[in-house]
Amino acid sequence: MSYKWRFKLSSSPTNTSLFESLISIKTMYDIAEFIMRAVRMLKPEQVSKMIEVLVNHYNQNKNGKILVMGAGRSGLVGKAFGMRLLHLGYNVYVLGDTIVPAIGERDIAIAISGSGRTRLILTAAEAAKAAKSTLISITSYADSPLAKISDVVVEIPGRTKYSTNEDYFARQILGITEPLAPLGTLFEDTTQIFLDGLVAELMKKLNKTEEDLRMIHANIEL
Amino acid sequence: MSYKWRFKLSSSPTNTSLFESLISIKTMYDIAEFIMRAVRMLKPEQVSKMIEVLVNHYNQNKNGKILVMGAGRSGLVGKAFGMRLLHLGYNVYVLGDTIVPAIGERDIAIAISGSGRTRLILTAAEAAKAAKSTLISITSYADSPLAKISDVVVEIPGRTKYSTNEDYFARQILGITEPLAPLGTLFEDTTQIFLDGLVAELMKKLNKTEEDLRMIHANIEL
Amino acid sequence: MSYKWRFKLSSSPTNTSLFESLISIKTMYDIAEFIMRAVRMLKPEQVSKMIEVLVNHYNQNKNGKILVMGAGRSGLVGKAFGMRLLHLGYNVYVLGDTIVPAIGERDIAIAISGSGRTRLILTAAEAAKAAKSTLISITSYADSPLAKISDVVVEIPGRTKYSTNEDYFARQILGITEPLAPLGTLFEDTTQIFLDGLVAELMKKLNKTEEDLRMIHANIEL
Amino acid sequence: MSYKWRFKLSSSPTNTSLFESLISIKTMYDIAEFIMRAVRMLKPEQVSKMIEVLVNHYNQNKNGKILVMGAGRSGLVGKAFGMRLLHLGYNVYVLGDTIVPAIGERDIAIAISGSGRTRLILTAAEAAKAAKSTLISITSYADSPLAKISDVVVEIPGRTKYSTNEDYFARQILGITEPLAPLGTLFEDTTQIFLDGLVAELMKKLNKTEEDLRMIHANIEL
Repeated sequence: MSYKWRFKLSSSPTNTSLFESLISIKTMYDIAEFIMRAVRMLKPEQVSKMIEVLVNHYNQNKNGKILVMGAGRSGLVGKAFGMRLLHLGYNVYVLGDTIVPAIGERDIAIAISGSGRTRLILTAAEAAKAAKSTLISITSYADSPLAKISDVVVEIPGRTKYSTNEDYFARQILGITEPLAPLGTLFEDTTQIFLDGLVAELMKKLNKTEEDLRMIHANIEL
Repeated sequence: MSYKWRFKLSSSPTNTSLFESLISIKTMYDIAEFIMRAVRMLKPEQVSKMIEVLVNHYNQNKNGKILVMGAGRSGLVGKAFGMRLLHLGYNVYVLGDTIVPAIGERDIAIAISGSGRTRLILTAAEAAKAAKSTLISITSYADSPLAKISDVVVEIPGRTKYSTNEDYFARQILGITEPLAPLGTLFEDTTQIFLDGLVAELMKKLNKTEEDLRMIHANIEL
Repeated sequence: MSYKWRFKLSSSPTNTSLFESLISIKTMYDIAEFIMRAVRMLKPEQVSKMIEVLVNHYNQNKNGKILVMGAGRSGLVGKAFGMRLLHLGYNVYVLGDTIVPAIGERDIAIAISGSGRTRLILTAAEAAKAAKSTLISITSYADSPLAKISDVVVEIPGRTKYSTNEDYFARQILGITEPLAPLGTLFEDTTQIFLDGLVAELMKKLNKTEEDLRMIHANIEL
Repeated sequence: MSYKWRFKLSSSPTNTSLFESLISIKTMYDIAEFIMRAVRMLKPEQVSKMIEVLVNHYNQNKNGKILVMGAGRSGLVGKAFGMRLLHLGYNVYVLGDTIVPAIGERDIAIAISGSGRTRLILTAAEAAKAAKSTLISITSYADSPLAKISDVVVEIPGRTKYSTNEDYFARQILGITEPLAPLGTLFEDTTQIFLDGLVAELMKKLNKTEEDLRMIHANIEL
């Protein structure tokens, strides 16, 4: 356990030993730390390009659609982002919802796939390109089939990606081990936080206040 | 911007200024840091109790059901956790899915609501209690109506919670500002990472390997 | 089995006995016959009013929203109708989808509940009224709580309704028994066919061809 | 309008002209009549085989899974059937739900596609066969790619199918026109009623009462 972990537990001093014994709490910390380190690996040109496309879409193509696509837990991350795009005033849809219209050349598709090889998402992304939509992909692999057909790619580190990173040896020396996060967990969680960061920048660029978002937020929600 | 933010950008040195200018990247970092600090505020007895209930359910009540309930983005966080419970071998359902059976006294309901007052989730939680199910709640408010009817409560900090925290003044001095994260974002993201931490502990306690999880993971996924 | 059932089986003459022995086929026939008889029980003023509201909404309030709400299988019937409203060019949402915006006074909510007492749908309908939306209800009970708060009510017969109908005695004499259709099946199936009838009338009134519908139909569908 | 349409309107005699003028009511009647005629076109060996597979699955493989798969409105029809399979006591899942486990050789996949060519459903069906599951298909085309890889096929007439039927000329003479039912409506509605017929037969064969179904029906439903 790294020194960072040994912080003072002001609120529950008598349970320090229980606190430190819980794998869940340790892993939660490790995942958050992974995400902080992942921030450093972001390529700002990619992020900047994604923001530019979304801001231009809002300002110049108010009736244009956005379709967010992802499978499994990546799909849920996409849905959470889709909700915020709705609150920001976008005409947005998510794959898997009942209500999904056709998209075309004035529309944007956003595909989320850690491997960039999820069969269904790749199929959907190809269909989006065939319909001449702008395709933004969020993936760990810039050389994946998904990335290759995309107009904009944002690379987000996931486990495998990170493990092969040049920092690996350094981490070992420091005793920083990778979190016990199975399957695509690290990609999914990092992408979720990244997209919430993106929402903050869109709020600023589109001059939206939290109250503006709240006005569009569902008033009948199941 | 705190000193932590000024890390060396080994992979894209020429774009340091672009990198540091992006609100999205700064906010992503801030949210991850918020989550790291939120770890300290967790009450280990609460977390430990939730794990105990879930482990006993698995070992002693193999056919027992778990129903995960949440509205909006909290519902998506619950669904992401529900998927992992499925992969761990639980007989799990999530509110909002087509396939949701009745639950009863040998079953567990897990309700996720930052405010602990989301009308629909409160109604669902009351129905779960009326059916004599064990109710676990994840909320920012231990004194909320949801928390009050729950058998197990895990408090997870959200924005408001954090803002009123005793550390507020200290944060101001240190120049740490709260992330630009609208509505329930901080609660949702923190809960998502917390629950992925919980999955790690359940894997250990139930002796599950990542390969075990992969075997149950959908092989046909839309 | 009524005489109507003994039709000539031109395509599979050698299997007449198997055909007639299958409860599934007999019940399918019975449900379809139930629906045909249910047509007679429709109140044309109610149907006409619902069409008028939808046509005016389309022509005079192009950006107005429609939110379709139903629980369980009634919710699925509502979703099938919602898809067609989308194809017709409406700005439509369905409760339970990820993407659901706030609705207000220029919007329409359509609630589907056989009993008119489904707790969640009643709650949602009350919220729609509180938001000053126009509320259309489809239910078997004109005196139900749901119907009472609605601006437009269309009564659709379900099992119980039908069973207490004045024609009951006549049916007994004719040997027509009610189909073996559990729970809300008859209401749900009758409503589904009714709403597809409504789609036909909306196509005519809005001058939409099948090709118009196809153009909006999702080109990326999971 | 055929003579069958001119039934006595006992409940609303003063509105006969309004009633008869409504395209929606006429189309509803036409669709129901289409379904009644579709009953005749069912192949009882196919229906019988599907029932046999489902009954054996229930009796001999209690932990076996069923996965129901369909896209768009056919997917909704599949979900409505999936709900009833749940109520009957099956361990059932539907494609598109959050909770969907892997399926294998002791499991059943049920694919619904009018054309038998819906790309995504064909992909999913191929995956089910690759996993050695039993594949039941419901389609209008016995020679479609989907039907060809299926273990059990049940043909359900849709519009095109019906239009090319040998009865076409006879219908013209009788003045029976096809309902104004766009896209896959006739297949979807006919399949929904067929599957509800199947539920009735499964209830009998599995000795289930309506009360048994109600006991499993969700007690917390959004």
